[in-house]
Amino acid sequence: MHLITKESIIEAHERIKPYIHQTPVLTSESIDEQAGCRIFFKCENFQKVGAFKARGAMNAALSLSEAERNKGLATHSSGNHAQALARAAKILGTKSYIVMPRTAPEIKKRGVRAYGGEIFECEPTLQAREATLAEVIVKTGATEIHPFNNYKVMEGQATATKELIEAVSPLDYVLAPVGGGGLLSGTALAARFFSPKTIVIGTEPAGSDDAFRSLQSGKIEEAQSNTIADGLLTKLGDKTFPIIQDGVKEIITVTDEEIIAAMRLIWERLKIIVESSCAVPFAAVLKSKHKFLGKRVGIILSGGNVDLEKVGKWFGSN
Amino acid sequence: MHLITKESIIEAHERIKPYIHQTPVLTSESIDEQAGCRIFFKCENFQKVGAFKARGAMNAALSLSEAERNKGLATHSSGNHAQALARAAKILGTKSYIVMPRTAPEIKKRGVRAYGGEIFECEPTLQAREATLAEVIVKTGATEIHPFNNYKVMEGQATATKELIEAVSPLDYVLAPVGGGGLLSGTALAARFFSPKTIVIGTEPAGSDDAFRSLQSGKIEEAQSNTIADGLLTKLGDKTFPIIQDGVKEIITVTDEEIIAAMRLIWERLKIIVESSCAVPFAAVLKSKHKFLGKRVGIILSGGNVDLEKVGKWFGSN
Repeated sequence: MHLITKESIIEAHERIKPYIHQTPVLTSESIDEQAGCRIFFKCENFQKVGAFKARGAMNAALSLSEAERNKGLATHSSGNHAQALARAAKILGTKSYIVMPRTAPEIKKRGVRAYGGEIFECEPTLQAREATLAEVIVKTGATEIHPFNNYKVMEGQATATKELIEAVSPLDYVLAPVGGGGLLSGTALAARFFSPKTIVIGTEPAGSDDAFRSLQSGKIEEAQSNTIADGLLTKLGDKTFPIIQDGVKEIITVTDEEIIAAMRLIWERLKIIVESSCAVPFAAVLKSKHKFLGKRVGIILSGGNVDLEKVGKWFGSN
Repeated sequence: MHLITKESIIEAHERIKPYIHQTPVLTSESIDEQAGCRIFFKCENFQKVGAFKARGAMNAALSLSEAERNKGLATHSSGNHAQALARAAKILGTKSYIVMPRTAPEIKKRGVRAYGGEIFECEPTLQAREATLAEVIVKTGATEIHPFNNYKVMEGQATATKELIEAVSPLDYVLAPVGGGGLLSGTALAARFFSPKTIVIGTEPAGSDDAFRSLQSGKIEEAQSNTIADGLLTKLGDKTFPIIQDGVKEIITVTDEEIIAAMRLIWERLKIIVESSCAVPFAAVLKSKHKFLGKRVGIILSGGNVDLEKVGKWFGSN
């Protein structure tokens, strides 16, 4: 069905190890008390570029032939994958071409430029992004590295869960957020190969519950964007969906209020910065306490790139 | 002159180790690039109760006789020491009596009560606090553990720098914030005994620069409280001052704007939560770049107990 095997994930991990952090796993007695289970937080917010995306982009870039690599890497992304790919290109001494909507935050553009990435601005629609990317690829001969619908990217993302399992096995559950499904499909594959008894659960904002609906209907549903979890607005891809159907037991959805409360607890108790999308799995555990009671639960904290100007709005101000 | 020796700090460390975290040391390439030196952040924001205070309180409590211990521990504090002492008492199975100004934030009171501490409220003046504490001690027979002007507390705080030195020696400089001077005197003693070539620098908000003025005048100066760094409003004690005079080369003062900018950089780049008082040494490094150029610099990140409602005010809001 697909090309990712236990061995290919092990190889991917060896391939990217020199270029990524083996991120820490944090625990908190007071959080465990509140949640009623033992939670192991895999801190990809401490990863290079501040998110797990560094893993997949690096694995995909390192897997190209030398001829491909020399012509550069391209993608359309307004988020963490853009920086991750620009960083991978810089490390490999090649170019990166990043298509971004002209409305993308200046700070994201600066992040890409800091790694030497060349930005192509377009209108903020999927159609414009895809058309612009196609032009860039024709012009440059660069290889597209899709943010999630790419087996080498998924394989790279799988290494986060592999590390978590190696650090704190056995786990009854592992939870990850789902947007396009790169992280969640990687999580499902890593669990299957390295800890088959661990149940994988996807977690999603209620205001963009397309993955939840896709698992119900059996086909890829369109995404909405009615949530603060702005890293999770994408619909699934044709490569990620079947792996998620196969390896993910269920998807729990949570409201923005639940996401903010969970994010606040992580900031206050763990003393670490996580972005809103990243708090979704912990919100799901707090919402479904009965399910996880007394269990050992792994959570992939996906990233920590927060626009601090928004914090006052989330947490109130006085 | 005083009773703290290399051996007594080593013993203190062994004494408290079962009850505290050996906190991590974090580094960041992008922060180093911006600062022009190599910075090692000792993350006491990840310490029990969210601050280095857990060390000193635990060491003082464990150093009491059994008879003393059984009568309970007492202090006046509106900050992290209150929780640290309540926690120490709970671990030792004894009582804690905490005098707090009635204006202290409810969250701090809840923190103390969560560890079983008994709170005595008083008017928010030093006089009222001291009078109330004296009454409590007469009534209960409890032993006062002062937040900083106590050799066992200073010895406990010294273990943070001891761990930092053990982790990343050699260091050219080590910087700590100074309020009452418990952490800074402990830092100076740890450097003297475990890394004598390391220069110790104190750092202080300009709006409460009493330690700076005390080193100039040669006597303990009164504190002001014109700063957001609300953990550093206290004047030095008669036990901390001579050790600071002896072992601290200079005190660098920074404005609130510099503190907020430094705090923001730590949040954004290290992805960790630090309180405003905690960002003062890093602000001092950024302000005095020439002094630290190319050096290996240790910074004690003192704590991470932030009132998130204030964040909007610090970082702006949109």
